[in-house]
Amino acid sequence: MSLLVTGSIGIDTVETPFGKRENVIGGSAVYFSYAASFFAPVRLVGVVGEDCPGPLLHALQGRDIDTHGLEIRRGSRTFRWHGSYVQNMNDAVTVEVDLNVLAERAAKIPENFRDSKYVFLANTHPKIQQETLVALHGPKLIVADTMNLWISTQRPELEKLLKKVHGLVLNDGEARLLTDTDNLIAAARRVLSMGPHFVVIKKGEHGCLMVSQNDTFVLPAFPADTVVDPTGAGDSFAGGMMGYLATQGSFSPSTVKRALAFGTVVASFTIADFSLDGLKAATRHAIDERWHQFKQAMIF
Amino acid sequence: MSLLVTGSIGIDTVETPFGKRENVIGGSAVYFSYAASFFAPVRLVGVVGEDCPGPLLHALQGRDIDTHGLEIRRGSRTFRWHGSYVQNMNDAVTVEVDLNVLAERAAKIPENFRDSKYVFLANTHPKIQQETLVALHGPKLIVADTMNLWISTQRPELEKLLKKVHGLVLNDGEARLLTDTDNLIAAARRVLSMGPHFVVIKKGEHGCLMVSQNDTFVLPAFPADTVVDPTGAGDSFAGGMMGYLATQGSFSPSTVKRALAFGTVVASFTIADFSLDGLKAATRHAIDERWHQFKQAMIF
Repeated sequence: MSLLVTGSIGIDTVETPFGKRENVIGGSAVYFSYAASFFAPVRLVGVVGEDCPGPLLHALQGRDIDTHGLEIRRGSRTFRWHGSYVQNMNDAVTVEVDLNVLAERAAKIPENFRDSKYVFLANTHPKIQQETLVALHGPKLIVADTMNLWISTQRPELEKLLKKVHGLVLNDGEARLLTDTDNLIAAARRVLSMGPHFVVIKKGEHGCLMVSQNDTFVLPAFPADTVVDPTGAGDSFAGGMMGYLATQGSFSPSTVKRALAFGTVVASFTIADFSLDGLKAATRHAIDERWHQFKQAMIF
Repeated sequence: MSLLVTGSIGIDTVETPFGKRENVIGGSAVYFSYAASFFAPVRLVGVVGEDCPGPLLHALQGRDIDTHGLEIRRGSRTFRWHGSYVQNMNDAVTVEVDLNVLAERAAKIPENFRDSKYVFLANTHPKIQQETLVALHGPKLIVADTMNLWISTQRPELEKLLKKVHGLVLNDGEARLLTDTDNLIAAARRVLSMGPHFVVIKKGEHGCLMVSQNDTFVLPAFPADTVVDPTGAGDSFAGGMMGYLATQGSFSPSTVKRALAFGTVVASFTIADFSLDGLKAATRHAIDERWHQFKQAMIF
């Protein structure tokens, strides 16, 4: 079923213990789209500035990604992020960030995207996330991501958003900040009281957990002995999860578990190389194979 | 089969956000014994000073724990530890520690304990751990624990010990310190190159991972929304794991996986209350029930 994502498209510079890549493609919507497109067609909504080099966007070509919602805005500049994982592979230090076009108005949602049934609001200002929702006609599943910045500075808007989404995906530090609760299971339950029917907490190398009214599900990360660049792992996880859900049409606990495992496995490809190179090296077949390996490893 | 543990027996004072308990029973061998005794008879070897109040040791009565190896040493004082989890439930801050009798010679291993087939060397000086091994007649499985202090200050002795054990259990920070490797899977592989056939890395609220020559197995923690006192969780985990293994007599990958899951579940009882109170509230039936629940939750 139709899967729409809206979020950032960026030009990244990333440093890790394995090296440095300058001006490579990045952004939450890019990682999400690429990851989800292994499972289902994706409708991408986002905006870059006129400075964005064309070849950068070629990375999405040949994928089942409809880029009619990708706006190249005259007179604007593309979102840029420079991060370093040199000290800590679990948390990036932001060396420099230029919001540029992200600080302007949201990208317009094409008319023929408005019937999308599965919607992922990748991390951006919660006001813009809400504006996106207004433009849609009866989505079946809305999941949002968020970040520290909005939790700290835009809480009223974020709380409004949380009443309008079915699911929230965020990382452990963000969940603790949002709920002022240290224990992650307890934090997840507090998120549920804010509106979402389910919450997924991403814990990086420690995997993820999902809590809904009736279920608590915990998954480790796929064991990887080489992490080259963690950038985009969380968005790839969400892409794998939503991409799989969009092919299923149900949200039974076992479907959601399988979706989280697909997200986990897709993210394990992302972190094996810089930028999109890890995902580019993946195939649906390789993902399925690793998924079965992961599933087997969980059985005891 | 016969399971022997040697390690600390202590008088603890513990502070957590849930309160404070003064002069309660603690120590690695105590938690281990209690946890393992849900599965198999345990032979406890350890030493306290003459200051140790009798009622404190009554906690082990009524359990299948042979305390003939428990020495009450005249003229010595019991190991005491005062820790606080008030700021961080994952890592205790040591407010005060008095090694006392632990800084003296090891406890003597009773003659009729020397044929023990399963041996757990709970955390203590690696030289004392090696002395214990010398006294044993052909154990089938030897697993050791260690800590930051010995890794930093007794590395040559620790390296000698590692060549004599089948398995090492340690936490994530200790694994990183021992191997100077950040990635935990890579760190585990480096531990294998030091001698052990398998290594179990405990990650607290994030579960555990086990790496052997042919296997990598990752388990999340049992999802708990209330952690009252994490003291002894790691020793209880090891107790549940070794206790179950001692009943099986084989170390097939699936047996080890099940053992790790039992360790995980037993630890989830420990952290639900102060000192041994969490384990005292458990029964083998409750452990089995939670184990099956955990197993089911892992299937997707």
